[in-house]
Amino acid sequence: MAESISSSESKIVNIFLDNASTTRVDERVYHEMLPYFNIYYGNPSSLHSFGELPAEKLEQSRERCAGLIGASADEIYFTSCGTESNNMALWGIARAYREKGNHIITSAIEHYSILNPLKEMQREGWEVTILPVDSYGKIDPGELKKAIKNNTVLVSIMHANNEIGTILDIREISGITKEAGVFLHSDGIATAGIIPVDVKSLGVDSYSYSSQQMYGPKGAAALYLKKGIKIRPLILGGTQELGRRAGTENIPSIAGFGEACRIAKEELSRNAIQVQALRDRLIEGISSNIKNIRLNGHPAQRLPGNVHMSFEYIEGESIILLLNSEGIAAASGSSCASHALKTSQVLLAINLSPAIANGSILFSIGKYNTKAEIEKVISVLPGIVEKLRKMSPLCNLGK
Amino acid sequence: MAESISSSESKIVNIFLDNASTTRVDERVYHEMLPYFNIYYGNPSSLHSFGELPAEKLEQSRERCAGLIGASADEIYFTSCGTESNNMALWGIARAYREKGNHIITSAIEHYSILNPLKEMQREGWEVTILPVDSYGKIDPGELKKAIKNNTVLVSIMHANNEIGTILDIREISGITKEAGVFLHSDGIATAGIIPVDVKSLGVDSYSYSSQQMYGPKGAAALYLKKGIKIRPLILGGTQELGRRAGTENIPSIAGFGEACRIAKEELSRNAIQVQALRDRLIEGISSNIKNIRLNGHPAQRLPGNVHMSFEYIEGESIILLLNSEGIAAASGSSCASHALKTSQVLLAINLSPAIANGSILFSIGKYNTKAEIEKVISVLPGIVEKLRKMSPLCNLGK
Repeated sequence: MAESISSSESKIVNIFLDNASTTRVDERVYHEMLPYFNIYYGNPSSLHSFGELPAEKLEQSRERCAGLIGASADEIYFTSCGTESNNMALWGIARAYREKGNHIITSAIEHYSILNPLKEMQREGWEVTILPVDSYGKIDPGELKKAIKNNTVLVSIMHANNEIGTILDIREISGITKEAGVFLHSDGIATAGIIPVDVKSLGVDSYSYSSQQMYGPKGAAALYLKKGIKIRPLILGGTQELGRRAGTENIPSIAGFGEACRIAKEELSRNAIQVQALRDRLIEGISSNIKNIRLNGHPAQRLPGNVHMSFEYIEGESIILLLNSEGIAAASGSSCASHALKTSQVLLAINLSPAIANGSILFSIGKYNTKAEIEKVISVLPGIVEKLRKMSPLCNLGK
Repeated sequence: MAESISSSESKIVNIFLDNASTTRVDERVYHEMLPYFNIYYGNPSSLHSFGELPAEKLEQSRERCAGLIGASADEIYFTSCGTESNNMALWGIARAYREKGNHIITSAIEHYSILNPLKEMQREGWEVTILPVDSYGKIDPGELKKAIKNNTVLVSIMHANNEIGTILDIREISGITKEAGVFLHSDGIATAGIIPVDVKSLGVDSYSYSSQQMYGPKGAAALYLKKGIKIRPLILGGTQELGRRAGTENIPSIAGFGEACRIAKEELSRNAIQVQALRDRLIEGISSNIKNIRLNGHPAQRLPGNVHMSFEYIEGESIILLLNSEGIAAASGSSCASHALKTSQVLLAINLSPAIANGSILFSIGKYNTKAEIEKVISVLPGIVEKLRKMSPLCNLGK
């Protein structure tokens, strides 16, 4: 047990079911990082010995991060977060191939780190097509084919949706983009380290993934960029990352990310089986105890830890607050927008009515969750929903 | 002593005189960060309790970072590194005021994180004027006045140069930009936490500063943006940092940065006095023992830890390698370009001939350096220089 976990803290009962938002740093990752703060703190670009070990750790981490997704090390560029990786891919690839055209295609369920840079790019003269999705969050390959035009440069489709958990058919999509000769970026922040990812067999040209979603620290993420593809940098300055991402490398976080990737590669299957069993028990336990609910996202092609449900007549935020008072942490939609309290763009895209969408919550299960924690949720949730429904002017159930 | 410093490591004699490149994390900073990896690891945007302490620490750190430079907390935006802060200021302010014009003014001794984004902006249709500097690295205020045109939007002048250590007269410069009604950004990465900084009295509109240059961790930096000034975000996505810098906040690094700012504010004067005494002793010790050298940068308006010197007839890289074999870490110019082994643009700008510029090295002294370390440098450097000069085809001294 790390010195940093005091005995008083460890007694507090807290059930963290918000692993899609961020994850606890694995103890092995934590210990991997520590020496880089005050022993091997040198700048890896230095010519002297203080830079040597950091520079070696940087390249070892690149190998490890590449290894997790079937890439080679020279196809991996480190960034500060998943959002930056997505911004870098969109701006960077599109601007590098501006002479090919100015049209970009994406889907309606992408994360804000895709949709918002694309809005900004529209202001700057780019043309953006947003494909609709079906009730599971999947795009129609035929629609994608029709949307590709002579001036299309880039298609950006996420690998799995961070809210409703649906895993998309990236291999099928890359077949279409390859045939059309346009680039395919995929946001893999919800998938890498969680389900098996092989960028070569997926056929993507670029792929974003992040440390903090796989038991690594905040402050490190990567962009896979297939060999030979050009990119204009988003952040310019020094020669770090071959000039494609300037700024002193955040070695402690990158070392942690590398270790997180190494661990994920080794333990991913075991974790996925364990997490999926908890997920299925939670879905079953909720479904058999509470009426007027729906499971969102695809029933089978779904992230192993994702339980996204709508509870009719009540507000997701209210459920979260009452769960919180029971020591259970869950989320309403993406944490990147949760303080905005807007209806999720994902839930509107899968055609949930705003009333139902607003009654949605996301339990995202991770490798540190236990069966006892899931049973606790199953035991307290019916009472919470009943209480809220009794207070709801929209609901006649049980009145 | 932290558990992470093993006894075998602490016995290795290593003299780190490359504090301009990055600094060792202060033990107090280190301990401030640790709990945010695996105890308070929640996402500050969460609605549940796991987000509460991280969100509080985020705002406390913002207060502390603001306090160091005389800003208010709502004028501070966290980024991932100083380079990102500089990029954000240039792209962000210029694009937000595009209707005012498309002209930007900077100086020839700026860091690459200013010069390289400006090159990219030139490609995208912006007009950039690069002001020359005098032999100390200072711009002529009259030249700046003349360079400002009707279409000028932004002026970017660094507070102190990271290589030659000259501190610029930002207050005088801001008088000119204010009168002309154009914005002034200043890169304060070499100054904040090292010399007293008050953004209000400096009169800047934006100011970049970074954790890793002031005994804080890598992975956190800030942009001060004066209240009321508009900016277009560089990285878009979620609503973090009021939508001006998206991406999950790197709470451990930000917590460390906040603590580093708190410590710097308290101990800056004492550290500066101590570091400056070491600097003056090093300059004196080198000057009285080695011939055909020059101190670069302003003799008085100079960073307290900066000793930048040129040694005629020899290569800076060779001096660094021989110093390194004596356990002494020094730098040749900016670490952001040191692997590129180009002649520093700063030294060419102050009109050093390439031959002399290439014989330059930078000792940057920090708060952990001791008098004994400085004496060690003074004792070994003459032998190193003599040895290299004997090997040099350019040099007749001592032959």
